[in-house]
Amino acid sequence: MVETATRSVDSDTLEALSIGAGILGTGGGGNPFLGKITTQRLLGGEGSVPIVAVEDLSEDAVVIATGGMGSPTIGIERMGDGAESLRAVQALERYTGRAATHIAIGEIGGSNAIVPVRVAYQMGLPVVDADAMGRAFPEHQMDTFTIYGIPPTPAALSDIRGHSVIFDEIGVANDLERYARAVTIQMGGAAGYAFPVMSADDMRRTAIPGTLSLAIRLGEAVLGARAAHRDPVAASLAVMGGQRLFTGKITDVDRRLVGGFARGALRMDGADADSGRRLHIAFQNENLVARDEGGTVLCAVPDLICIVDTETGEPITTEVLRYGLRATVLGIPAPAMLRTPLALTYIGPAAFGYPDVEYIPMIGTYGVANA
Amino acid sequence: MVETATRSVDSDTLEALSIGAGILGTGGGGNPFLGKITTQRLLGGEGSVPIVAVEDLSEDAVVIATGGMGSPTIGIERMGDGAESLRAVQALERYTGRAATHIAIGEIGGSNAIVPVRVAYQMGLPVVDADAMGRAFPEHQMDTFTIYGIPPTPAALSDIRGHSVIFDEIGVANDLERYARAVTIQMGGAAGYAFPVMSADDMRRTAIPGTLSLAIRLGEAVLGARAAHRDPVAASLAVMGGQRLFTGKITDVDRRLVGGFARGALRMDGADADSGRRLHIAFQNENLVARDEGGTVLCAVPDLICIVDTETGEPITTEVLRYGLRATVLGIPAPAMLRTPLALTYIGPAAFGYPDVEYIPMIGTYGVANA
Repeated sequence: MVETATRSVDSDTLEALSIGAGILGTGGGGNPFLGKITTQRLLGGEGSVPIVAVEDLSEDAVVIATGGMGSPTIGIERMGDGAESLRAVQALERYTGRAATHIAIGEIGGSNAIVPVRVAYQMGLPVVDADAMGRAFPEHQMDTFTIYGIPPTPAALSDIRGHSVIFDEIGVANDLERYARAVTIQMGGAAGYAFPVMSADDMRRTAIPGTLSLAIRLGEAVLGARAAHRDPVAASLAVMGGQRLFTGKITDVDRRLVGGFARGALRMDGADADSGRRLHIAFQNENLVARDEGGTVLCAVPDLICIVDTETGEPITTEVLRYGLRATVLGIPAPAMLRTPLALTYIGPAAFGYPDVEYIPMIGTYGVANA
Repeated sequence: MVETATRSVDSDTLEALSIGAGILGTGGGGNPFLGKITTQRLLGGEGSVPIVAVEDLSEDAVVIATGGMGSPTIGIERMGDGAESLRAVQALERYTGRAATHIAIGEIGGSNAIVPVRVAYQMGLPVVDADAMGRAFPEHQMDTFTIYGIPPTPAALSDIRGHSVIFDEIGVANDLERYARAVTIQMGGAAGYAFPVMSADDMRRTAIPGTLSLAIRLGEAVLGARAAHRDPVAASLAVMGGQRLFTGKITDVDRRLVGGFARGALRMDGADADSGRRLHIAFQNENLVARDEGGTVLCAVPDLICIVDTETGEPITTEVLRYGLRATVLGIPAPAMLRTPLALTYIGPAAFGYPDVEYIPMIGTYGVANA
């Protein structure tokens, strides 16, 4: 659905990727800043990672998806050595006896967009222009690899000390999620993961294509608009499609940590064209449901509810929400693969505890500007 | 130190093993009854498992230790299918690419004495006449494999659904213990484990030899004394060495669950020769420190404090302690390998939270009757 415009990730495209992935994180997915800095240092001025489109994967490709697991807060407080996910991929290679030919992104929203690029560079491999969410979600079983039937195991976790844990013969992704999260907590709250191992056919059937280059283009649009003193929010919509839901000021944030997730809600008072109106957003790490003052649902998961700084277009993640921020809320249509009846059983409003919210798909197409 | 008298385990020797292992469990280690029943059914009238002495292990032996992990209470409430530990051994074989030639017992005290016998039968392999505790302890890093330097990983866990988890590159046994326990809890509280993988030399250097046949002889002595209307408690001491510490009635039990362990203390009022005296025993699953009414330590970990029914010699485990039981407390010298300065840092009184208790080794030799 989205063409592959960018052909490699270098230090400059990482800058753009970090902003684009932040916006696609819909409040969650972890702040990509730290990962961007360490990866830029690794790449230096010359380094780059080739991007391969899903349709260009060779038939004998061995694709391993990777990323980081654990609370983003811990990722900032207890810095890794940048090799946890690399070690997880290598552990999975040893276990399966198969060498990866390509690295895949599990989650394009937030910091997990950067990690696979770093792993690919460390291994001298290309990264695939796709992911399994098109955004961020809090748990692994919410990805399209799982939804469309890729077995979750074998899978590997590794931590900063080089410890590795391999999971196998686990048919239900939710079980893997529970085991891996329990180990991650014992590892100190942060680990690198590697799974699943996929063929070219698996990727073509289950991945959301084009999301890496889309995230880069989104970030480039924001950076370009800023440099040209144009509106970065309008530039974002011109890349992603969707619409401006609300502009105003954050006036109330109710956030609490429940079961390792940041749950809560925020209220905004309108400004400019929205003056006199109010918006209410419920979140669990990611923003889930946006309602107007009358309770009408304006946008609901899996469609993307992205809060950005009105002036700079910079993403505002859930952990930095606070009173007084002047923000614009974007509603962006979810990728078509997240809107199927099957997918909605995993990631529709009911799956997040909103059985009363009917999912009415936002008009438009993910990654395509409105006509 | 102990000769290998019994050359195989069959349905009858299992009966004896279950009693001997129960006594060596020193209150913990899990009740072996259920494992005995299911294993007897598996063996039938004809089946048996050969026992191989440590000194008779072939130089190219591949020895894998196995057992069950989790709370014994859960083992009774949620019965396994008897193949969890078998699957763990098989997962470790696949991971290492090495086929086991012998099965080893990690813990001879309690139910974990039976599990390896069952696995050995299922795999058509012999079981080694040894273990790594000579008794029961609550955690894996308290075994002689760990104390004397066998790397704890690779290691495997498996559950009733066939899920398998493999741990590798973990140098510190305490880390493995934490990870494996976290996964076991997520698996429902019970799992089979397999580790470490050892050579004949590893076993000769780090295992406590002869403990399987010792546990069988201990059980046979109890059964024989009962049948002959002789004193089964005296018969136990004639096999194990050590001494009768106290005979009386349990008058007070203070037991609470802390961090998954049964912690607490019991008081006994003396009878017969001990009339007018009192005994106090502190426990954490296993009995740890026995003191007289003046506070003098009579026996302390790693020496064995075994509570048995005064009439039948049957072991009384921590979870069934209750007011009114007429019991005899035996003090049995720990195996020499548990009494070294190095071992005491892992399993001496201070390691269990009793820094004020000096370990004064009980006179005698584990498994050798007093002269």
